[in-house]
Amino acid sequence: MDQLYQYESLLDFTSRVFVRMGCPPTEAATAARALLSADLRGIDSHGVARLTGYVRLWEAKRANTTPDIRIIHETPSTAVVDGDGGLGLVVAPFAMQVAIEKARAVGTGWVSVQHSNHFGIAGYHAMKALDEDMIGIAMTNASALVAPTFSVERMLGTNPICVAIPAGEEPAFVADLATTTAANGKLEILQRKNQQAPQGWIQDKQGQISVNPHELKTGGALLPLGGDREHGSHKGYALGAIVDIFSAILSGANYGPWVPPFPAYVPMPENMPGKGIGHFFGAMRIDAFRPAEEFKKHMDQWIRRFRGAKTVEGQDRVLIPGDPEREMEIQRRQSGIPLMQSVAAELQELGGRFDVPWI
Amino acid sequence: MDQLYQYESLLDFTSRVFVRMGCPPTEAATAARALLSADLRGIDSHGVARLTGYVRLWEAKRANTTPDIRIIHETPSTAVVDGDGGLGLVVAPFAMQVAIEKARAVGTGWVSVQHSNHFGIAGYHAMKALDEDMIGIAMTNASALVAPTFSVERMLGTNPICVAIPAGEEPAFVADLATTTAANGKLEILQRKNQQAPQGWIQDKQGQISVNPHELKTGGALLPLGGDREHGSHKGYALGAIVDIFSAILSGANYGPWVPPFPAYVPMPENMPGKGIGHFFGAMRIDAFRPAEEFKKHMDQWIRRFRGAKTVEGQDRVLIPGDPEREMEIQRRQSGIPLMQSVAAELQELGGRFDVPWI
Repeated sequence: MDQLYQYESLLDFTSRVFVRMGCPPTEAATAARALLSADLRGIDSHGVARLTGYVRLWEAKRANTTPDIRIIHETPSTAVVDGDGGLGLVVAPFAMQVAIEKARAVGTGWVSVQHSNHFGIAGYHAMKALDEDMIGIAMTNASALVAPTFSVERMLGTNPICVAIPAGEEPAFVADLATTTAANGKLEILQRKNQQAPQGWIQDKQGQISVNPHELKTGGALLPLGGDREHGSHKGYALGAIVDIFSAILSGANYGPWVPPFPAYVPMPENMPGKGIGHFFGAMRIDAFRPAEEFKKHMDQWIRRFRGAKTVEGQDRVLIPGDPEREMEIQRRQSGIPLMQSVAAELQELGGRFDVPWI
Repeated sequence: MDQLYQYESLLDFTSRVFVRMGCPPTEAATAARALLSADLRGIDSHGVARLTGYVRLWEAKRANTTPDIRIIHETPSTAVVDGDGGLGLVVAPFAMQVAIEKARAVGTGWVSVQHSNHFGIAGYHAMKALDEDMIGIAMTNASALVAPTFSVERMLGTNPICVAIPAGEEPAFVADLATTTAANGKLEILQRKNQQAPQGWIQDKQGQISVNPHELKTGGALLPLGGDREHGSHKGYALGAIVDIFSAILSGANYGPWVPPFPAYVPMPENMPGKGIGHFFGAMRIDAFRPAEEFKKHMDQWIRRFRGAKTVEGQDRVLIPGDPEREMEIQRRQSGIPLMQSVAAELQELGGRFDVPWI
């Protein structure tokens, strides 16, 4: 049975570790909030369990904890941000804020980011727009685990997209999705339980369908959303490609098979064409299109109509994107965040090394 | 065997029919080019075969051939366009042009459209940005044929998204995709041939998987990209929902199950919350992010690396989004566009009624 930990305690621990890594205190707090948002929302693969991974990146000198994050090019509605090798958890909030400020000024703001690192979950960054009565968009590329349709080579990351849209009385619509059939985190769960994966999630190194969740260790690949050509995998591949291009080719980051890996023990790709990994952010002011109150009234109607749609037998209701994560967050803020014993032990060991007392 | 017709002849015929419907000559030519682009690119379900459908919409007074298309709200980077009930084939080019002009001025332009009609293929509109060294984006909602995950009700259209990205020496990247496992046009082909559909394309009226391509006539539904929950249908559903919201709730058009149907014999939905159908367009100037030549050099490298990826046995190459359609266009511009005998007969009959000589 996983033990439960209070959000505030984990946040404080994480923030202190980032300080020990050399992050200025406000940036450490920013990074900790971004990282822990994954645990709150139930995306355990991207949360505090990855803290040791970020530490190893820094130890391998692949992450800069005192970056000079800055705008290197801009127009009234766009910017390119250079993350200076910083943690994506710090670079992304900076860039999203630039997008929001540009939206405030001219209706929308669009920011492509080079020389960054992994930013946690896309949802956290996109949702920053909601309080401003804006639609928020966040995406990132990542190291290659996914084979395009017909390819045996891994060419794309799981390249997630989040679109967060404010509503009125109803909670916001928040779609946060990897452009693969299944996120890598789901595969990790099967690996730990030693269970087979459904057909359509992965292929082996010859490009044949596999149900072995360990297949990626021997040259296999995740499959794009759709799974195979007949079921539209070329669409999932196209979506992942769009994320890659917006995040990296607009900004000057690395793309495709050249995106640097998250695990610090994996060698860096050769002949890298850009700097670090890339992100892309957008903010659209609702009232740049129509009065926010009108928009929200119709979003409420949309949400209620979809939530009330007649369901397949055995299902209670049609979900609105963001429902499961929001419900998880309410529960976990109250009862705590469950950590596997191995993760807790690893964090405790990390705390020992960094002279940060474990919870 | 389908007979082949020259593009220019079909374009001339179509344009004349639009003039007979009351379109001013330049708008008729615009509409004909947009419609025929589907035939050129091999998306036969959305091309000249639909001309009689547009005529019937007009006869049912559901399409206005002399619309006063205009901007009803704007900021430096956004606009809402009122299509005044016009043909989407005319409204969409107007709105895309607004997006392009805003991008020229402030880096990006984003236009949501209300009170429009079906606009043909998204690709045609998005690709207008390519010649301007801009990324083009086009999407539209459509009448409900798709059941969200767990729903038996049809709540969304096939809601396509196109993203067109310029390259240098390589041809542009053009991803044009319905947010369903399979586009409705593919189902129509199976219906004509009386062949079964693959599992994961459609469900019956109880929400059970079906392989009957006629299922939609008896309350069945198309499935979102992913097919079922285990294979990520909630992601396809989310993408279709985003298209619906950007196209209709930002603009004031109808959304979800209230989107007006294309077939003129289908009654209009009751209690419609908006006007007509909605579209959404975007244009992003490449040099609002980095010099266009730099961007294109890296796009070429991206395209070549992906096209050259090692393939699964039996496949020649990894395709770049847009490859099949571009190759089809080259072939059809040269050899002609094949029309089924029934389609040609229907068009000939239409020409007779409108006093426009068939080819």
